[in-house]
Amino acid sequence: SETKCMKSEGASGGLVDWTVSDVVSYFTTAGFPEQAAAFRTQEIDGKSLLLMQRNDVLTGLSIRLGPALKIYERHVKVLQKTHFEDDDC
Amino acid sequence: SETKCMKSEGASGGLVDWTVSDVVSYFTTAGFPEQAAAFRTQEIDGKSLLLMQRNDVLTGLSIRLGPALKIYERHVKVLQKTHFEDDDC
Amino acid sequence: SETKCMKSEGASGGLVDWTVSDVVSYFTTAGFPEQAAAFRTQEIDGKSLLLMQRNDVLTGLSIRLGPALKIYERHVKVLQKTHFEDDDC
Amino acid sequence: SETKCMKSEGASGGLVDWTVSDVVSYFTTAGFPEQAAAFRTQEIDGKSLLLMQRNDVLTGLSIRLGPALKIYERHVKVLQKTHFEDDDC
Amino acid sequence: SETKCMKSEGASGGLVDWTVSDVVSYFTTAGFPEQAAAFRTQEIDGKSLLLMQRNDVLTGLSIRLGPALKIYERHVKVLQKTHFEDDDC
Repeated sequence: SETKCMKSEGASGGLVDWTVSDVVSYFTTAGFPEQAAAFRTQEIDGKSLLLMQRNDVLTGLSIRLGPALKIYERHVKVLQKTHFEDDDC
Repeated sequence: SETKCMKSEGASGGLVDWTVSDVVSYFTTAGFPEQAAAFRTQEIDGKSLLLMQRNDVLTGLSIRLGPALKIYERHVKVLQKTHFEDDDC
Repeated sequence: SETKCMKSEGASGGLVDWTVSDVVSYFTTAGFPEQAAAFRTQEIDGKSLLLMQRNDVLTGLSIRLGPALKIYERHVKVLQKTHFEDDDC
Repeated sequence: SETKCMKSEGASGGLVDWTVSDVVSYFTTAGFPEQAAAFRTQEIDGKSLLLMQRNDVLTGLSIRLGPALKIYERHVKVLQKTHFEDDDC
Repeated sequence: SETKCMKSEGASGGLVDWTVSDVVSYFTTAGFPEQAAAFRTQEIDGKSLLLMQRNDVLTGLSIRLGPALKIYERHVKVLQKTHFEDDDC
């Protein structure tokens, strides 16, 4: 990748170092305060977030379908993509 | 695509600008008043509608299978196709 | 297809014209009276029947697995196949 | 296939002729008496058994995951394979 | 594989010889004491563990999504990989 090596946004370290609370803060700030609580209930930290697939977000969090679709497409997928591009540094 | 660049039907703006209420109105008018309520419950706006796959409609809305199959095939798929053709304008 | 252009069996018109009651009658006659009721509950008419996939029959009708497997393999699949062959007429 | 044409084990006739009770007897004898009852509940006869896929065994019988994995891998898959090899006779 | 032929870790014999209790001990030691109990409930021994796929771990154990993702990725997948490499000895 030719992108510059930037830190993942939302926590001081990289995504793999995010605690469950960092994940909850990220989604609260991103406009999904109600859904953010589900990440705490399911104990999703940065490492788990990296392993989530579309269906896990849609059915494994017990959140409404509309927000779930946006959370996966605009955030989980993007955070994962950014993380793996960082690996090329 | 060689189709002309038409606005998506059912709301004044494009599908991405539809609110949840626009989505509910669309499916009510399309002959699915009972199922339309499920789109409100699941908070599906135009942006979320664009991201829905077959299985999301069939199992994520908790609506009966017969109407769900038609809603996906005749409406969700068609609205998405129209939207992405518009992108070629 | 080289098959002759026969009407789909079980109703006077083609499968697309079957009402929910036609579908229920078909499966009752086919030896599945108990499961036939599920097609009414889920509002499956001929048009919806044409759109059903294996998993929809197995999990979307809330019927027992044994009969569900036969209903899909011997009936739904066959009715769909016959319908699409008719399209070649 | 080069295997000899043997009858499927567990009933006098081939798998397609097994009744639900033959299926229940087979799994009881095979060491799964508790899970065998689920095949009766779901009305699985030999013909239905031939149509079962991995996911049907794991989620459609409401049995525990450990035994379900073995039932599919060591029995359902093997019975199906034996049946279709018999077809070459 | 060029790896040396090592015993699978966590029990004296290979993974296929692990009892349900061996599996429970392994996941307790691995840092998942709460989730380990689910392996007992679902009667997962070493042979069943070898047959588990991603979705079985995520939805078949009724455990929280975060730990489930790590259990599959860091343990189940790794134990299976190690087992099949041992087969080359």
